[in-house]
Amino acid sequence: MKFAVSKPRSYAILGTGALGGFYGARLQRSGLEVHFLLHSDYQVVLQSGLIIDSIEGDFTLAKVNAYQNAQEMPPCDVVIVALKTTQNHLLSQLLPLVLKEQGVVLVLQNGLGMEDEIAALVGDHRVMGGLCFLCANKIGGGHICHLDYGAITLADYAKNYQPAGITERMKQIATDFRNAGILIDLSEDLLHARWQKLVWNIPYNGLSVILNAMTDEMMANPYSRSLVEELMAEVVQGAKSCGRTIEPAFVTRMLTNTAKMKPYKTSMKLDYDLGRTMELSAIFGNPLRFAIQAGVVLPKIAVLYQQLQFLNTRMITTHALK
Amino acid sequence: MKFAVSKPRSYAILGTGALGGFYGARLQRSGLEVHFLLHSDYQVVLQSGLIIDSIEGDFTLAKVNAYQNAQEMPPCDVVIVALKTTQNHLLSQLLPLVLKEQGVVLVLQNGLGMEDEIAALVGDHRVMGGLCFLCANKIGGGHICHLDYGAITLADYAKNYQPAGITERMKQIATDFRNAGILIDLSEDLLHARWQKLVWNIPYNGLSVILNAMTDEMMANPYSRSLVEELMAEVVQGAKSCGRTIEPAFVTRMLTNTAKMKPYKTSMKLDYDLGRTMELSAIFGNPLRFAIQAGVVLPKIAVLYQQLQFLNTRMITTHALK
Repeated sequence: MKFAVSKPRSYAILGTGALGGFYGARLQRSGLEVHFLLHSDYQVVLQSGLIIDSIEGDFTLAKVNAYQNAQEMPPCDVVIVALKTTQNHLLSQLLPLVLKEQGVVLVLQNGLGMEDEIAALVGDHRVMGGLCFLCANKIGGGHICHLDYGAITLADYAKNYQPAGITERMKQIATDFRNAGILIDLSEDLLHARWQKLVWNIPYNGLSVILNAMTDEMMANPYSRSLVEELMAEVVQGAKSCGRTIEPAFVTRMLTNTAKMKPYKTSMKLDYDLGRTMELSAIFGNPLRFAIQAGVVLPKIAVLYQQLQFLNTRMITTHALK
Repeated sequence: MKFAVSKPRSYAILGTGALGGFYGARLQRSGLEVHFLLHSDYQVVLQSGLIIDSIEGDFTLAKVNAYQNAQEMPPCDVVIVALKTTQNHLLSQLLPLVLKEQGVVLVLQNGLGMEDEIAALVGDHRVMGGLCFLCANKIGGGHICHLDYGAITLADYAKNYQPAGITERMKQIATDFRNAGILIDLSEDLLHARWQKLVWNIPYNGLSVILNAMTDEMMANPYSRSLVEELMAEVVQGAKSCGRTIEPAFVTRMLTNTAKMKPYKTSMKLDYDLGRTMELSAIFGNPLRFAIQAGVVLPKIAVLYQQLQFLNTRMITTHALK
């Protein structure tokens, strides 16, 4: 599917946190029209714009199109979903308001299965996915700190995650991001790319919360290191159950890179420590479900999922009582 | 094997904590000769004896045979091993000193595989096992609080955990304990009894530490409750791999009883909170090893074991740094 118009594409950012704010600000700085949906930071961003502290150069956007209400946003060519997946129940209301008739939804979230759900809302031919390798934090209202990385792997979606190949619209959106200084890889197979990312996300996000540990501790202790490897092996099995092959060399590279990284607190651990609902369905529940539908049981990942659900429930309850 | 003499049997208690102290004091109160090996509480017990606060009636033994050094103890007919299993490396030195030629070692510890190791030290025909259903804490030097229960399931040991049947010496020792007011069950099959006890110990001890939870929380949350049940199912599989059948009704009873119990902090959680090494080899490592030797993998228990090993290592390191 091509976009109907070749004029500069307009972008909507649903969820202006560290990720949505960073990529949106980069796109606007490159000259594109960007519309930001905000929640808690609406007033401050409306008044002061966005401030990006970045290893690739700090910049400020004094004026951005900020909205508190999606009904006031214009329909856009590309709608970037940068909410936490735990907020995806809002999309059935938001997307019809902000998506142009020929527009596409670009899902920049972690996990699996979000595109299926969004396709059910907007149609199978209006969804794409992106895997972000970004290290950024929000350090204040409208103030984002970009610490490292930033590349995105783009892939198009087709019904039931069939490989969609390299499509024209992928190339168009890739051009926009590259013009904004973002490294873009193109993948012919969204489901493969999503399973690959889970090779890292499932063990490190899960164990960081359960063991209250940073990446370096998990790699240094022989028991947790071995458990990380066994969980990665189950992710590879899960991918295989969906007909996707993850090469052993990829798994080895994840381990080696993580061992070399500076001690890192995962995003799930950050959420947990801040009392925010963890993204368990997208990162654990859906991959387990995909594998089970293919007749494959992943018992070790299932243990983590149950433990995390317990911790999540208790955290929410405790938080609600405060 | 019968005891050579029919005169009153003498008892040695290796490890005078809550469990060793409670049973030893009851045996002494019933008129038997008991010798207590102590470590940190030696001075206070030598001077003031043992104080037992018990739901079945408080009592004090003003004078007990207290030892700091096993070399000063007389050889005894029955040597009760009531150490933490993490101290069992001491037994190769202790047992030859305190065990009579015709004496027997009675292992009152949780877990699996201790009898094999002790048999290698003293001979296959000089070991018995006991499963204690006791709720007691040490609340001060030589001061024990008996909160609930107290029954012991006794079973004799034969090489490689073959079922040993009901032996004469079991009946003799059972008589001593019953005379001391302790409920005794006799089991023909030690390995079966040990696997059965693991149905409770593996899920609740393990998850209580990993999830920082009491029994009531684990039962109330549907995710942890379901994980408890799945772990119990793996224990049943483990038992089966050793040729032992655990009836579904037994598993159901464990769940029902635990749900009805007052909120309970497991002994492993107590150890963890106090910075004491957890009994991971006996309760997790050995059962996993027994199953693997029979060609059966228990993946969910294996995850718990690795997580607990990580936590144990960190706790010991942290403690050493204090």
